[in-house]
Order: sequence, then C-alpha cells, then structure tokens
Amino acid sequence: MGVNREKSITFAKENRGGFLDELKELLRIPSISTDPAFEKDIRRAAEWLRTKLDRIGMVNVQIMATKGHPVVYGENLNAGEDAPTMMVYGHYDVQPADPVELWESEAFEPEERNGNLYARGSSDMKGQVMASIFAIEAVMSQGALPYNIKFMIEGEEEHTSPNLEPFMKEHKDLLACDFILNPDAGMFAADIPTITYSLRGICSFEVHVQGPTQDLHSGMHGGAVRNPANELARLIGGMHDEEWKVTLKGFYDRVRIIDDEERAELSRLPIDEDAVLEEIGAPQFWGEPGYTYLEKVGTRPTLDVNGIISGYNGEGMKTVLPSKATAKITTRLVADQEPDEVYEGLKTYMEENADASVTWTIKYLQGNKASMSNMESDEIQAMSKALESVWGMRPVFNPGGGTIPAVGYMKDVLGAESVLTGFSRPDDNIHSPNEKLHLSTWYKGIDSLIHFLENLKEIYD
Amino acid sequence: MGVNREKSITFAKENRGGFLDELKELLRIPSISTDPAFEKDIRRAAEWLRTKLDRIGMVNVQIMATKGHPVVYGENLNAGEDAPTMMVYGHYDVQPADPVELWESEAFEPEERNGNLYARGSSDMKGQVMASIFAIEAVMSQGALPYNIKFMIEGEEEHTSPNLEPFMKEHKDLLACDFILNPDAGMFAADIPTITYSLRGICSFEVHVQGPTQDLHSGMHGGAVRNPANELARLIGGMHDEEWKVTLKGFYDRVRIIDDEERAELSRLPIDEDAVLEEIGAPQFWGEPGYTYLEKVGTRPTLDVNGIISGYNGEGMKTVLPSKATAKITTRLVADQEPDEVYEGLKTYMEENADASVTWTIKYLQGNKASMSNMESDEIQAMSKALESVWGMRPVFNPGGGTIPAVGYMKDVLGAESVLTGFSRPDDNIHSPNEKLHLSTWYKGIDSLIHFLENLKEIYD
Repeated sequence: MGVNREKSITFAKENRGGFLDELKELLRIPSISTDPAFEKDIRRAAEWLRTKLDRIGMVNVQIMATKGHPVVYGENLNAGEDAPTMMVYGHYDVQPADPVELWESEAFEPEERNGNLYARGSSDMKGQVMASIFAIEAVMSQGALPYNIKFMIEGEEEHTSPNLEPFMKEHKDLLACDFILNPDAGMFAADIPTITYSLRGICSFEVHVQGPTQDLHSGMHGGAVRNPANELARLIGGMHDEEWKVTLKGFYDRVRIIDDEERAELSRLPIDEDAVLEEIGAPQFWGEPGYTYLEKVGTRPTLDVNGIISGYNGEGMKTVLPSKATAKITTRLVADQEPDEVYEGLKTYMEENADASVTWTIKYLQGNKASMSNMESDEIQAMSKALESVWGMRPVFNPGGGTIPAVGYMKDVLGAESVLTGFSRPDDNIHSPNEKLHLSTWYKGIDSLIHFLENLKEIYD
Repeated sequence: MGVNREKSITFAKENRGGFLDELKELLRIPSISTDPAFEKDIRRAAEWLRTKLDRIGMVNVQIMATKGHPVVYGENLNAGEDAPTMMVYGHYDVQPADPVELWESEAFEPEERNGNLYARGSSDMKGQVMASIFAIEAVMSQGALPYNIKFMIEGEEEHTSPNLEPFMKEHKDLLACDFILNPDAGMFAADIPTITYSLRGICSFEVHVQGPTQDLHSGMHGGAVRNPANELARLIGGMHDEEWKVTLKGFYDRVRIIDDEERAELSRLPIDEDAVLEEIGAPQFWGEPGYTYLEKVGTRPTLDVNGIISGYNGEGMKTVLPSKATAKITTRLVADQEPDEVYEGLKTYMEENADASVTWTIKYLQGNKASMSNMESDEIQAMSKALESVWGMRPVFNPGGGTIPAVGYMKDVLGAESVLTGFSRPDDNIHSPNEKLHLSTWYKGIDSLIHFLENLKEIYD
C-alpha cells in the first residue's frame, strides 16, 4: 500500500499547475446563490462540476433539481454493495462580492499575489471542493478503491441550504452512505491542522408582543395600558438568570457536560483571549462563570437577540406608546438538545411570564440540532493521522460555535456522521472582500486528503 | 355689573355670524409649523392675528421673532400698573393635514356640516384662540376693564414649543402677568364643561448600549460576548418592579399622593372603562394596583419605551450578535417630581445595574415638570362659576395625562399659573383627518369666557 500512497502524492505534486488552472476556471464563474441575477452562473458552475466529476471516473453524474438551485451528484460504486461508502459534501455557490470597491483585484478573476490566490469562493469553498476532487483523482489514478464514493455538491449553502433536507429525503436511497467528508470547516489558526468535532445547533424564533391595537399617546394612556416594548424587554431580560444561565424550562436537561478530557483537548487550541477581546472591542468578556472563552462558544448553549424593534426610532422623540414589539431570538444548541424542546420551553416561558395585559405569538423560524463527532471513529482517526503525516503535528480538535445546517440534515436523513476539516485559514477573508486561498496550505490540504483516502483503504481493505 | 355681563353676552350672540366668518378666514391659512414649505403661511397667520388684536383694542401689537416661528404679542394695560394682568396663551400653528385623502372636505377650506365646522385647526386651536379674542372683544365693547390683558400666541406648539422658553426668558418683563388663560385643554367629554387642573410633566431619554465595536456572528461569539440588545432589554425590564412601580432611585420621593378629596372629584368624571378598553384593544388594563384608570393616567408617574431598536429586523433571520442597542424612554411626571432628579435616578440605575461587559450612554432629550393648579384660586373659581352658569352644571376637574410644555415654561419663567380649559370635544378629531369644531359648543365656549372675564371684573374691581 505504501507504494500507492507515494504514487498518489507524486501524481498530485506533478499536476499542481493543472489543478490550479482548473480551480481558476471554476472561480471565474460568479455562482452567487442569493441573487437571482446569477442564476445562469449557478447553472454554469454546476455544469462545470458535472464535466469534472465525469472525467475523474464518477458515473451516474447528474445535475439534480431542488426547489432552489440544483445539486451536482456523482458516484463510483465499483467497490461493491458490501463495501463502505464515503460521501463528499460541498457547495459550489459563493457569497456576493459586495462591497466590490474594496477588492484589490476582480472578485471573479483569480489573481496570484504573495503565495495566495485571490477570488470570491477560493477559500469558501470552491478551493476545498476541488482539493477533495483532486485528491480522489490522484488516488484513483493509482488503482481501484476498496470503498465507494459519492459526491453531493449543493448550490445554496450561502443562504442556509433551505432545500437540502427535502432533497435528501426525496433521494435517500441514492444518497445512502456510511460517513461524509465535509471540507467546509476551516482551520483554527494558520498552519494548525484542524478537525472540527462539533457544531452548535440553532433554534430561532420571532416573538411578537401586542398591546393596544394601535399606537397610543403615552401621556393619554401611559401607566394604565401595558407598553409591549417594555413587556418584551422584561420578558427577554428574564430569559437569563443572574449567573447568565438561560431560564427556559428544561433548557439544560440534555446538555452534554464537558469532561476533563475534552477540556484538556480544548486547552491545546492556541488562542490569545486578550487579542480576541481587542478585536471584538467589548470592555470585557461575558457569560457563564466557570468556562473559558472557547468552552463557552464551543460547548455551551446560548440565547441571543438578533434583532428587536418597536415604536419610533427616528430623530428626537415621539411620545408614543407602541402597539407592538418584535424580537428575533436565536438559541445556539449543543449536543444533545432538541430544537423542538427548546421551542416548547420558550412557549412555556411566555405562558408563565407574559403579562395578561398583552397578547403574544411565537414564530418558529428554524431548528437544527447540534452535531458532535465520535472522536474515536475510524474515519476521524484516519483524518487525524493524515493531517499529522502532512503537517508534522497532531491536529487540534475544534468545537465550532456556529451551525452548518447540512451537517445536521445528513445526520438526520442519512444517519451519517461528518468528518469536518478544511484548509481555509482564519485570515482568508471568507464572506469579505479580498477572499483568498493560501496556496501552499491548499497543496498540503490536497496531500492530507490523499493520505486520508489512503488511510481509509487500509481500514476498509 | 350684571348689566355689562348681559350686554357682553348679547354682543357676542349678535355677532356670531361675523365671528364665524372671521374664524373661517384664519382657518384658510395652512399654518403648518412642522413643514418648512408652509413658512409663508405661518407668517400670514401671524399677520392676520396682529391685525385682529389691533382691531379689538390691543396696543403694542407685534410679531416677535424667536429662533423658530414668531410669537404674536399684544396688550391692553389700561387698568394700570397696580391692577392684575391676565395673559391669554394660544398657538396659531396647526398639524399637517396628512393623510389628506381621508378628509371629506378640504382641510383648509372650512365647511359646515351637521352643526360642525370642518377644517384643520378648527378645534386645535384656532377656534379656541378666536373664542378668547371674541370674548375679550365682547367684554371690552361694554367698557374698560379693571385688569390688564396680554396675548402671547405662539407658532410652534405642534412641535413641542422648542423656542418658547428662551423667548419668554428674553422678554420676561414684557410678558409679566399674574395668571394665564389657556384654552388649549379641551373637554373631558361632549357637553361636559372641563377645567384641566393638572398636567403630567415629561422627562425623555435615549439610552444607548454598546457591546462589540461591530456586529458579530452569534455562532462564533454567542455566549462569551454580551449582546447589547439582551442587556438593554434586561435593564429596561428592571426599571419596573413586580407591582409595576418604577425602580429608579428617588422616583416617588416628591410624588404628591392623591387625597380623598381629589379621588372624589375624579370619581365625578364620566368614564366607561370598558368602552375605553375596547377602543384601545388591549386584553386588559395594566398598572399600579390600587388606582383607577383615571388616577393612573392623571396622578401617577410612568416610564414607557417609545422606541427600541437593535440588530436585524428584516424578513427571516440573520444570526447576528448586534454591536449596539438603543431605546427611547419617556417618564411622565406628576407634581412635584423634578426632571433633573429623574435623569439622575436613571443614571444611577444604569451605573448600578448595567453589566461591565457593555458600555452605555444616556442622552437627555427633554425635561418638563408637571403642573398642578391651585383649585381654590380666585381665577379657577371664576372659571368654574362661568362654566356652571353657561352649562348648568359644575365643571369636572380633569387631571391631564399629557404634557403642554408651554404651561411649565410659563410657570417657571413668569411664575404664573394657568387656568386650563377649552371647548374642543373628544370626537373633534384633532391631529386626525376631518378635524372639526362643534359650533354650538363653541358659542357656549365664547359665552363661558365672557362670564369668566366678567367674574374677574368682580374679583379685581
């Protein structure tokens, strides 16, 4: 087996120039998913990927419709029905380039400068998708694999993958797999190979509080009619206790408590809390006592107001007693919280606490469970070893504070866990002007994925 | 004296047609104070009043500049330096006519329908200003008065009289007087003569809470960085206790407690609380226990959010942890609360309660004390008897929930109390489309003011 691994790596090294040219081709397509004006480019990017998957030996390659942008699918099932199946998840859509005037070179005309490739999508995540494709191309160039491969590359990740779950439910059999390789998770720091082992879930609401049917004069009625803005503020205030714990009934019942081992692993993550605080610009950190910054954002659930609005907010004053107030509230969930239970907890809270002088409604916007990988699984171990082989250091295990809805959907619908890694560095400006891909990191990423695929061969053989 | 009273009343009755024509002339001038496009009309209305004051025997009549729209001044000091002086306060500016499409006749082309005169300003308050002028005209037509008269008619009441206080300070000697007749207070109900014996004051703020210097991703940082929207909500929630009392330090220290006599007087006010609630549309009333609706809005101080805004408030969700949150807050004050002390109380509250993980500022927008008349004063008694003579019932004494800043300024700068009455009915649609003046009420109003002026003659003679 050692022979193949070396040959695969050599193949990749010899083809770096071609890989880079191919990536640039894909980056020139402005496949912005949130703007209908780019619908044709979305299609062009999907077509480009279909052709590429065809060429590297995938079969049954197709552009599959969803209620939104299509999914590119391809498979190689030569290992047979009894062999394990890996699915590669990715997305070919990108964020808009705005504000375009802040780009130093054209967002959709890739340019190499100082060892980086600048273009929208270079890091998030066309570069990562192509690294996976090239690694598979390299390994397959050396012979058949003892496991099957499927690709599912979606076009709506940059607006929360709204159609992915129904798509997967509709094509559950086609998409069946044993685990997922998801290279969309990025690195904790430059030159620090990273496996993201958990992601927080999310449960989002709009809370509406209604007082009088129309705005009143605060002099004529103030003091006798409940002000819905005051009431909503009071209710939000009561959603945390004095130790900044969330007060919704049952909120912590299923929360997995971080153990010493996880704590020790987290403490390996290189972080300068002072530097983070300075960047954020708040006077000091906040939150539950007894947890570090990383423990808070990685392992603890939260409740945040994303928006609140009521009454008059123009210049000067207007002595209005508003008729209604609305807040958007997001709870970030950790394993094993259930979004529906959090919603029930909020409903109960409102029932028990909202004053009878107002009415209220809750709109349940979104619910995604947290995901947490089994760090002892063969696939995670295969990735860990692969990263160590290339970088010369054991990867860090990062608890992601954010949510990738696709990861939860794949777990729920396909029953498959994701191996989350990636070669996007924190300074790659994803979602911002001058997005870039650090090329030597990218090449190391391709090598790491080849190691991973070769490690899998040993496991599954 | 009885002879003169009768003759004055007769004069007014005989001149009703002319009075109405003159009022219509003034109503045709769209003297909207909040829109610079109507600057010329503001001037025209002031000129019209100057001419009218001249004609009824006022001297030293002038249009006096302020930093905004001018004040019309006139005086008759024939009673001599030692005689008391009454000042008539009014305003010649009006609200905009918007939404104009809801008017059944032109807002600035007065039209009589069903015993009402429809026009913007007919009730608020050109009709009231003219009733006062006509009453004085009628009484003076029968001979000299034993007291002096001054007029101060401003042009900015409809946007909170921002330049009136400095104007009065600048012309303090010219404006010196013993009491003020202010017919801008309206009637408690149709056919119920009303003296407004108190007005709540106001103390308004903007509270800004700042967390991080820019919006953050609620997944990346939520749980470790204080969300300023949550913090502001919590702070607002804490501004009332469980009995809905305001928690700012010292807030109630100077509050005059309603006594049995005042309670009894208030209970005379005809009010159908169920009907009020139905009109308001809230599920039930709210507020401090132990007080009726009228007691709450008339005699108790409040704290209301007029506006609150933070973060994302568009469609759907955006998982932002906002960098800042702002609320506009108004406290309504009763005698003898001091606005500056309320501001200090709010500052102390923020100092003691705001979490150290955020910064905050308070912008002090406005502070006006409450005003409360001495119900035993000769002038109030003269008005009470006058109203009773015309309406055949003792007037009700109404505690006004709102604020007329001019009343406080006149008390502070001139040391003069206001006799607050008026002949605007609750169904007159002031500030709304189809504003009207109920003509038979208006004629009774003129007669009432004649009685009042004649009563004063007896007192001051």
